[in-house]
Amino acid sequence: MVDVHDLTLEEKASLTSGGDAWHFQPIERLGVPGYMLTDGPHGLRKENSEVAALDMKNTVPATCFPPAAGMSSSWNPQLVREVGVAMGEECIQEDVAVILGPGVNIKRNPLGGRSFEYWSEDPYLAGHEAIGIVEGVQSQGIGTSLKHYAANNQETDRLRINARISERALREIYLPAFEHIVKTAQPWTIMCAYNQLNGAFGSENHHLLTEILRDEWGFEGIVMSDWGAVHDRVASLNGGLNLEMPPSYTDDEVVVAVKDGRLDEKQLDKMAQGMLDLAEKAREAMEREGFVFDKETHHAIARRAAQESIVMLKNENGLLPFAGTTKVAVIGEFARTPRYQGGGSSHIHPTKMTSLLDALEERGTDFVFAPGFTLDRSEQTSELTDAAVEAARNADVVVFTMGLPEEEESEGFDRTHLDMPAKQLELLSRVAEVNPNVVAVLSNGSAVQMNPWQDDTRAILETWLLGQAGGSAVADILFGDANPSGKLAQSFPLDIKDDPSMVNWPGGDRIVDYGEGVFVGYRYYDTFDVDVAYPFGFGLSYSTFKVSDVRVEATGDTSARVTARVTNTSDVDGAEVVQVYVNPASETPVERPIHELKGFVKVFVPAGESVDVRVDLDDRAFAYWSEKDGGWRVVPGEYGVEVATSSRDIVSRETVTLIGDGFYEELNEWSNYGEFKKDPYGALAVEHMLEKGRTGELPAIPEDNLGVQLFLETMPINSMPVLFGKDGKRLTQFLLDDYAAERERLGK
Amino acid sequence: MVDVHDLTLEEKASLTSGGDAWHFQPIERLGVPGYMLTDGPHGLRKENSEVAALDMKNTVPATCFPPAAGMSSSWNPQLVREVGVAMGEECIQEDVAVILGPGVNIKRNPLGGRSFEYWSEDPYLAGHEAIGIVEGVQSQGIGTSLKHYAANNQETDRLRINARISERALREIYLPAFEHIVKTAQPWTIMCAYNQLNGAFGSENHHLLTEILRDEWGFEGIVMSDWGAVHDRVASLNGGLNLEMPPSYTDDEVVVAVKDGRLDEKQLDKMAQGMLDLAEKAREAMEREGFVFDKETHHAIARRAAQESIVMLKNENGLLPFAGTTKVAVIGEFARTPRYQGGGSSHIHPTKMTSLLDALEERGTDFVFAPGFTLDRSEQTSELTDAAVEAARNADVVVFTMGLPEEEESEGFDRTHLDMPAKQLELLSRVAEVNPNVVAVLSNGSAVQMNPWQDDTRAILETWLLGQAGGSAVADILFGDANPSGKLAQSFPLDIKDDPSMVNWPGGDRIVDYGEGVFVGYRYYDTFDVDVAYPFGFGLSYSTFKVSDVRVEATGDTSARVTARVTNTSDVDGAEVVQVYVNPASETPVERPIHELKGFVKVFVPAGESVDVRVDLDDRAFAYWSEKDGGWRVVPGEYGVEVATSSRDIVSRETVTLIGDGFYEELNEWSNYGEFKKDPYGALAVEHMLEKGRTGELPAIPEDNLGVQLFLETMPINSMPVLFGKDGKRLTQFLLDDYAAERERLGK
Repeated sequence: MVDVHDLTLEEKASLTSGGDAWHFQPIERLGVPGYMLTDGPHGLRKENSEVAALDMKNTVPATCFPPAAGMSSSWNPQLVREVGVAMGEECIQEDVAVILGPGVNIKRNPLGGRSFEYWSEDPYLAGHEAIGIVEGVQSQGIGTSLKHYAANNQETDRLRINARISERALREIYLPAFEHIVKTAQPWTIMCAYNQLNGAFGSENHHLLTEILRDEWGFEGIVMSDWGAVHDRVASLNGGLNLEMPPSYTDDEVVVAVKDGRLDEKQLDKMAQGMLDLAEKAREAMEREGFVFDKETHHAIARRAAQESIVMLKNENGLLPFAGTTKVAVIGEFARTPRYQGGGSSHIHPTKMTSLLDALEERGTDFVFAPGFTLDRSEQTSELTDAAVEAARNADVVVFTMGLPEEEESEGFDRTHLDMPAKQLELLSRVAEVNPNVVAVLSNGSAVQMNPWQDDTRAILETWLLGQAGGSAVADILFGDANPSGKLAQSFPLDIKDDPSMVNWPGGDRIVDYGEGVFVGYRYYDTFDVDVAYPFGFGLSYSTFKVSDVRVEATGDTSARVTARVTNTSDVDGAEVVQVYVNPASETPVERPIHELKGFVKVFVPAGESVDVRVDLDDRAFAYWSEKDGGWRVVPGEYGVEVATSSRDIVSRETVTLIGDGFYEELNEWSNYGEFKKDPYGALAVEHMLEKGRTGELPAIPEDNLGVQLFLETMPINSMPVLFGKDGKRLTQFLLDDYAAERERLGK
Repeated sequence: MVDVHDLTLEEKASLTSGGDAWHFQPIERLGVPGYMLTDGPHGLRKENSEVAALDMKNTVPATCFPPAAGMSSSWNPQLVREVGVAMGEECIQEDVAVILGPGVNIKRNPLGGRSFEYWSEDPYLAGHEAIGIVEGVQSQGIGTSLKHYAANNQETDRLRINARISERALREIYLPAFEHIVKTAQPWTIMCAYNQLNGAFGSENHHLLTEILRDEWGFEGIVMSDWGAVHDRVASLNGGLNLEMPPSYTDDEVVVAVKDGRLDEKQLDKMAQGMLDLAEKAREAMEREGFVFDKETHHAIARRAAQESIVMLKNENGLLPFAGTTKVAVIGEFARTPRYQGGGSSHIHPTKMTSLLDALEERGTDFVFAPGFTLDRSEQTSELTDAAVEAARNADVVVFTMGLPEEEESEGFDRTHLDMPAKQLELLSRVAEVNPNVVAVLSNGSAVQMNPWQDDTRAILETWLLGQAGGSAVADILFGDANPSGKLAQSFPLDIKDDPSMVNWPGGDRIVDYGEGVFVGYRYYDTFDVDVAYPFGFGLSYSTFKVSDVRVEATGDTSARVTARVTNTSDVDGAEVVQVYVNPASETPVERPIHELKGFVKVFVPAGESVDVRVDLDDRAFAYWSEKDGGWRVVPGEYGVEVATSSRDIVSRETVTLIGDGFYEELNEWSNYGEFKKDPYGALAVEHMLEKGRTGELPAIPEDNLGVQLFLETMPINSMPVLFGKDGKRLTQFLLDDYAAERERLGK
């Protein structure tokens, strides 16, 4: 195995930049390979052309699995892992060593242009689902690239913008998905974000790339840049970035920097050694010859993944599923020309593609089709409208496919509103007038405005972007061959103006402030009682479930276990997602959301049967990040534990009393009088001080003077002279000394 | 006149700290006096005791004018000035050289415990009203202390908390009231805030005390500490604080610091010289002997001020004013025991005090009184309820005095909710059942929850805290001897949860983030279309007005003039406040509020007559603070100018096209491709680059590749190598060179 010390300085420098747009840099002299890497994240985007980046149209066929917008609604990490395994196999066939994904940035605001590539507004859910991709791909000896690290939550000015985020919001919201996956699955690579975080570019951010990622989390892989995120090779290497992609052909600058001392050669060694290690990891899979993945098997996985990605939002009077004999009118161009993935670097050339029309024909359904509208911006024609209305009039039910055309959602820009296209809504209203049995089938990468148009429907399937087998999956759900089990991974607000990030969205002057802090998505809506169209975690089933026998017990000072029984009270087999939210202890030094998702389990329950489930809550389930203390804190107290089927459908709320992390905050001159009175040793010191005041040994505190008492309470004891003049210092000193003495005496 | 160079080092140090809690430090050797200073801000709080601070009960009598919560509703700077003159006179009589006030912190959130001492949620209004106090007092040769500089917007942990505020929000929201008053009226002193701003204590904050206050605004006075805000004498002197109050008796530390170089003696000289100058300014007034102010005249001013402080929120069917013969039931303990000022350091011992009952008796009104409830937390009794209901039943109208007891609002703590006391609301509902003609007379220092209880009233007078003549003023309004003309200086939200600061209120872990940025109060509610109970600027009159003939014209590149005619269309003399709000230009590089108050004029119009008004808008009316450019910017474009009678009652919206400030942002390698295309010279460079691409002189840009075009648009041109490999650098360099050449050629 080649070691970094076998290399010349120039060779080390060369390893920290790509060989070309899609390959690592080889060192032929030493047999270091320059393997290929390609875009993901929901399938392989391997360009045929090896010259220019971004030749979107010219890529080898690969299975297009549902993008994260869809997959995330499955709440099924095992299924995600199967997709990962399949993607790993496709990489082996195509000689791709590393696939770029998954992307676990938080959907801070549904307008974010890349929302469809990201998993959730909730970091726990994002981390615990997306990890399946990493584990699945890497089980095949292929690397992943967890991205975009960190806080790349918008497209607007993404290459320059400075995201200003409090350390607490960073730790509690924007990093945990990365943290969980790094600690649990060790992705081979991480991709840095374009943007600045608190003044330092993602590619140069020592706090992110070195202090947090490696020193705190123990990351063992390499960090590569997003394409074009490097502006200063030396600053990046110093910050902890191993690999610049694509190459800027500035290795000579790195060499000079080592020679003139701006870059420590040991740091370059570390960065380059990471690249050598990565090549070794990939070698086995890359040296396999002649492996061919099974297209049909992968298509079937894509179909199952699509089934579980669908969220049934509404189903009045059990309109769904249809009986086999129902006369169906299928309306909307999306049924023929599905929008099954998003635009940008994740765009895949599928191995095959099944539209809803294909799927209905395949199953021999009795249906008529009217496109109803075009997907471009052309004016609606009366021909299209009339044909659709006529089709609806003569059918038992209408399947109305609707959604956002590709040009409205893509990497590269943010949406400016959540509205559905007006011409679709007008047609929907005309259709509903002649046939109220409308099932809306929605295609969109992130939340859309649901009102008032949803009143024109009796049922709604939110199908997101479903990948190449989406048409079949929708048909499976419509006719009950699959039972919907998806749950929303993001809130649907009533109006985008309700979103707490809107006052700072998308920023300006190259700055965006994350002013809402930790109150992202349901953390805001639920804490501040803001009505939503559909809450986080929501989704209907053809089954009915009962969750009972909920028990919560502490399993340690800072951990607990939740158990419950889920009964399928219907005659249809189905799956329920049991969601566990934690309420903070009442005495918490910071404002916390009213509840946060800290565990979930998706359970398949046959009709009429029961299954017991268990969710373990570790210390992180109860912790907040303290900027004051520079770490995670679990305060002692009574925590609420909610078992729920959405963030607003709480089945049971139990409490558990935790001892806490044992952190003791030592009092000092900056502690205030009130804090002294609350502390066991401090309280004794205060008592002694008051006694000595009464006997004249110390200045007396006027205990009946309300004004003085009011000021005193929140006054750091070093401000005593304000109230007591020269004598104040004696009081301050007495409190500090007596507190120390009492701690000594009582053995702490 | 003594000069700082006449002093020993020790004497200089001594001047930078008080002589005692309420005096400057004298230097007897040189005849430097140690004049007195006392709390304000709505009257003199001069302690009889000279030993301890905060002896609330033991102060000399002084006229209690309406606190800022009331006065601010007058929108009458001239009236405020009269109050200031009167306070100045009282200072002369009492040998007080400096009165501590006014306080112009922004009411960021109505829960703020000191809201009653502050002026508005709007910085323009706060600055343009409170300046009357400064001008009035200082016209008498007495100093003021503009406070609390800066960002002291809450009581919670106020002595330690770190307010983290963007420079833009600071400049646009939290500083302009200070800035306007400093630049226009030069207050003799400024009082620093307790809290930290972006990590530096108010007492040590060089950015605030030196860079902004002195270097930018040209402040000529001295900065003193809030009581106990100094933690490090040397750091404070270095930061730009002249005076520590009260003294901590640590002058020796200052001397040592000069000797060992931690404090430049020149800086100490500056700070001490300020103190000498201040003593000189006060000398004339302090040497006047035997001056006695006229208590009755001042009481009359307090009465007029109170009249204009009252805001009529509701007056169904013209229930108000009462005819002289109306049989009135007065209910509520506040009628007998008025809450006329707030708690804490501003608490004044009034020269006399007129309750509503006193006033009604004085005018011989036919009324019965029932206290209805107590002001303490004791349970409601059926005796109190029954007597009140009985009184109401037998009257034509009910004057229901209600409000927040003193213990619910004070310096020293923040409120935790906006609710009115439950027992008052229950009684109100009982009273309204027997007599619907209820006039609610509200006493409170900041916004309260208005729903659903306001449905039990037909009229509402928001009387705030009205000072010692409040009872007479309320009676004047009730019977039409005065016509209400007050307008809200703060929004009344439907629910405190709607307030945009709530996600960060009041912070924790010694940190509070001002995450809402510039979207404070109506700037948020109006921009995000959030319903309120009563909007900023709202208030009814017994008169009706018509605002017509609105004209807006540019008066320069960055300024405009608004003229309008106000007609009193009723048969009652009255006053209207014409409010001018500015809408931002559509192409602004940052998110701006939908409108901002930038001018107002209160105009008294006799019945049936018309008065022409004029409001001049200077450059600041159109500017935003650019963090990128480090200054105020007026971009060219079309601005809206609204003439209104509240933030939601827009009479007229005109537009004015401004040339702007002429600021030209030079393009560089960090400018993106889209910005190049928009710039006149940059566009030529892009055109030349594309041409050369077509002829092969430069790498060709694939103009029909949508993916490339999408990325290119927001890409800083220094990232060209991402798309074009090695050749990218040539493109970047060509654009920069050609841009420079075109600027040169076209003469810029």
